[in-house]
Amino acid sequence: MHAAPISRLINELSRLPGVGRRTAQRLAFHILRADDEEAFALADAIREVKEKIGLCEICQNLAEGPRCRICQDEGRDRSVICVVEEPADVIPFERIGEFRGLYHVLGGALSPIDGIDPEHLKIAELLHRAGAEEVREVVLATNPTTTGEATALHIAGQLGGVVIVTRLASGLPVGADLEHADEVTLGRAFSGRRTL
Amino acid sequence: MHAAPISRLINELSRLPGVGRRTAQRLAFHILRADDEEAFALADAIREVKEKIGLCEICQNLAEGPRCRICQDEGRDRSVICVVEEPADVIPFERIGEFRGLYHVLGGALSPIDGIDPEHLKIAELLHRAGAEEVREVVLATNPTTTGEATALHIAGQLGGVVIVTRLASGLPVGADLEHADEVTLGRAFSGRRTL
Repeated sequence: MHAAPISRLINELSRLPGVGRRTAQRLAFHILRADDEEAFALADAIREVKEKIGLCEICQNLAEGPRCRICQDEGRDRSVICVVEEPADVIPFERIGEFRGLYHVLGGALSPIDGIDPEHLKIAELLHRAGAEEVREVVLATNPTTTGEATALHIAGQLGGVVIVTRLASGLPVGADLEHADEVTLGRAFSGRRTL
Repeated sequence: MHAAPISRLINELSRLPGVGRRTAQRLAFHILRADDEEAFALADAIREVKEKIGLCEICQNLAEGPRCRICQDEGRDRSVICVVEEPADVIPFERIGEFRGLYHVLGGALSPIDGIDPEHLKIAELLHRAGAEEVREVVLATNPTTTGEATALHIAGQLGGVVIVTRLASGLPVGADLEHADEVTLGRAFSGRRTL
């Protein structure tokens, strides 16, 4: 029903996460109505990000150039490495501002069912980094999900004895309601209880 | 916190309707993770749609080339013109398949408060078309909103006596949006159109 270029745009927009046909159509009509300048700026930004952004040679996070801003920052503590699954996971840590060490981005989590084995993640790169003399601690900050836990356990096994390996605390989120806590979370919170 | 090309992409994505900072960031990370091929296909589709799609010289709907597919279709009934506000409003009519005439896309609705006066819409083009001998009826299918009603009344006044002027039947809930009308309601409204 649409002219070919419009159908093509709707199809491409539909591939974005959380964008169904309806939303894709709405976005396409917005782009058609928008100034050329605005539309071309979006197209160029997509191209530019793919052309200019690669992986940091140290931490495997997204970087413009060979090293990311955090690894380039002389003020960061090089003795602690916080291991996360995805580049997006670095953002909340930077937002709280409490962590001043470096990161290591795995590029996913272990999931044999989906064919994601250790060699598909940046685990070898992490083991290499953790072997450096300056590294004292590795914080495993993979997600508290089945795959994230499996990944953390696998890495902990590989790093055994080399450095101190820690894991983010699991428990009730601040502001949560005990009555509505799920059993697994509550179990974790109980077994991880601390002396006051 | 992000490298400049990533921030730029997030900013551009945030300008899309219904896309906040959070969603824009999620979409940007998806694009970063996607194959170059997929990302470039999206960028190219945006460029292509702006470069190739213009307005149909007859009905002012979106068209690839000088005339849209509907106006080019010899099988359509040239004696009835269905007047809608936006290109997206043509889609639900085509979906119900009951209407076999041509369209006229105004490019919006009258709204003096927003500075949208008759000369900002494709009303002159409609009056010119309606003056042709073959045209028997003009169906006013602007949205059943204040601005849509005002636009319908204005056009009905201009067309008085020249052709039969009809309006979609009520049955569409007032304040609703034509683009999202369900097909049964829209079919009822269309078959129940009345002379103004």
